[in-house]
Amino acid sequence: MESLETTKTLETLEKLEGLEAIETPSLLIDAVRMDRNIETMADVARIHQVNLRPHAKTHKIPAIALKQIEAGAVGITVAKIAEAEVMAAHGISNIFVAYPLVTASKIERAIRLSEQIELIVGVDSLAGAQQLEHIASRHGHSLQVRLEIDTGLRRTGVLYEQAAALAAEISAMPHLRLTGIYTFRGSLLASKPTLDVAAAGKEEGALMVQLAEHLRTQGIAITDVSVGSTPTAAYAAAVEGVTEVRPGTYVFHDRMQARLGVCSLEDCAGSVLVTVVSRPSADLAIVDGGSKTFATDIQPGTEPLQLKGFGHILGLADATLARLTEEHGMIELGPLAQAANLQIGDKLRIIPNHICSTVNLHNHVMMQHGHTYTRTPVLARGMLE
Amino acid sequence: MESLETTKTLETLEKLEGLEAIETPSLLIDAVRMDRNIETMADVARIHQVNLRPHAKTHKIPAIALKQIEAGAVGITVAKIAEAEVMAAHGISNIFVAYPLVTASKIERAIRLSEQIELIVGVDSLAGAQQLEHIASRHGHSLQVRLEIDTGLRRTGVLYEQAAALAAEISAMPHLRLTGIYTFRGSLLASKPTLDVAAAGKEEGALMVQLAEHLRTQGIAITDVSVGSTPTAAYAAAVEGVTEVRPGTYVFHDRMQARLGVCSLEDCAGSVLVTVVSRPSADLAIVDGGSKTFATDIQPGTEPLQLKGFGHILGLADATLARLTEEHGMIELGPLAQAANLQIGDKLRIIPNHICSTVNLHNHVMMQHGHTYTRTPVLARGMLE
Repeated sequence: MESLETTKTLETLEKLEGLEAIETPSLLIDAVRMDRNIETMADVARIHQVNLRPHAKTHKIPAIALKQIEAGAVGITVAKIAEAEVMAAHGISNIFVAYPLVTASKIERAIRLSEQIELIVGVDSLAGAQQLEHIASRHGHSLQVRLEIDTGLRRTGVLYEQAAALAAEISAMPHLRLTGIYTFRGSLLASKPTLDVAAAGKEEGALMVQLAEHLRTQGIAITDVSVGSTPTAAYAAAVEGVTEVRPGTYVFHDRMQARLGVCSLEDCAGSVLVTVVSRPSADLAIVDGGSKTFATDIQPGTEPLQLKGFGHILGLADATLARLTEEHGMIELGPLAQAANLQIGDKLRIIPNHICSTVNLHNHVMMQHGHTYTRTPVLARGMLE
Repeated sequence: MESLETTKTLETLEKLEGLEAIETPSLLIDAVRMDRNIETMADVARIHQVNLRPHAKTHKIPAIALKQIEAGAVGITVAKIAEAEVMAAHGISNIFVAYPLVTASKIERAIRLSEQIELIVGVDSLAGAQQLEHIASRHGHSLQVRLEIDTGLRRTGVLYEQAAALAAEISAMPHLRLTGIYTFRGSLLASKPTLDVAAAGKEEGALMVQLAEHLRTQGIAITDVSVGSTPTAAYAAAVEGVTEVRPGTYVFHDRMQARLGVCSLEDCAGSVLVTVVSRPSADLAIVDGGSKTFATDIQPGTEPLQLKGFGHILGLADATLARLTEEHGMIELGPLAQAANLQIGDKLRIIPNHICSTVNLHNHVMMQHGHTYTRTPVLARGMLE
């Protein structure tokens, strides 16, 4: 799906003229595309009658979380208690911290927050559950928890075959209410990265529904079966018994999702505006964005995506963002791109490989409504703790 | 040089007990090591009688820039006019923006700043110089500039053989004062990445001194010959005719510099404190820092460094920070590390591969003086524009 825009050589460059007032590098968000993405995923959830709980790690902006909720989301997902605190302070009242909280200070922060809003926290081990129970008990508080299941990614999550035993122990703890199970799998099939996101989503949903049914036969009242990321959400949602999906990236989409076939490059709402600062040779243009502007966690040339370069350069065929140093991006220009005759001072737009970690590098985004750009702070950026 | 700490297995873990009050993940800076690094590089510059102008991209903290100046630096280097503005607002009065400024708005900001402090800006093209001249002329202002030379890295910088012609054109421009030449080369030898930083530094210095002499014979009064990064500064400074070095990373050092042989791991002042949040199997521990905590621009297993994993885990032999997702770090544990019997809730310290881009992910650092930790905001973080 990467071919569409590469034929338009100069058209997109010309459109950038209205952007002269914007300093670069700048992360632009096209509000029309974003709104459409928000609606599309809300429709997916409605059609399959599952809850939508978007992961806010992608945008980290409370105003966007509120838009997702207006469109039908039941609440949001975050990875950090600090992110939950920022979101709650800006009016989000239903948050799932899909991460094991194991230290006393974080659990105490979660308890404080759960006295104010609907809060659910993740748990994936007996030690973690005991710590939650211990501190919740001390505060005379009941915490809603979900058990994380490892369905092949080998990071957090109890092993699938050990889940029933752990669920039984947690459900016996008086200050924890175990209401659901969840997993994060990405685009994995039979424990290997895959481009077959449909099969991956179905497998993910089926594994989790099967486990939920098994837990219910043991007398554990699992109501929430929460699965699915942007590549797999639509397929996992179609599995009977799945109750919730938690996609994040879809709000903006990115080059990785386009490569996975989940969206087209035209659906990507986020792009980085850069300026050509140097033209040392005919086949090379240097732009003012490097590894502090474009995230490097999704590397070019790796399986299964095999992306070329660190982003898709709009309107310039056979140009590759081939190398990054901290504040320099080295664009290699093939014959077609050389013909475009880039000048120092020209601006380019680049769709990053991975939008979530790219947003996290920016203090603010420029939100585009027609010809108006609004500087919007990324309020939960860097909320690591 | 990576072996020293790996033998101490549990000693370092025990020392972390005093850190319980610190939320994780957190970037710790050991002030004693930092101060020693600042002094050591100041001594290098003094011995070779060259100016030291540290690159502030590493720390992005004005208080640290002031320490470097107190220790003898003549001023600082930055990559962005926005960084210069933050630094100037906090008392730094001599700044080199070692980056070509080519847009009107940025040049106007540079002119405003240069009315308040000693400011030098980079230039590497005729188009860029003309733009600088045009806007400086409009403001009736004279801008001090340095010409950037490409000595093999193939990013910004005029090609070596074209430098004399461009210097002649710039020196004829009435509102630009061309006082120096500079280059950034990293650890490159004969245009290839190398571990032989001594030879690389000598070659870099020699190339630039030779060019400066050639320009002088043309009647261009080059006073500043500015070279050298952390790996090469000491060797380039020793070359007769070099007047300034601009190392950045040395203030904290990192795993990459240790691998290059520039420092030992004991010189590394920056480490990330993380908590074990999950132990899904005997050979795997999951910590609460991923690609939004550890920069991924220096990838494991790439030439010439061949680093193992995304950081050096202190006190745990044969443990590798093998994989990162956004908020999860997957540590593979060999037999020795498995014997350490890590528990959920245990804390680890990890020296990142690249400290500059890692600092840039953090809103603040925890500055350690003895047993006291001071939360210090990274004021120029994300100052991309």
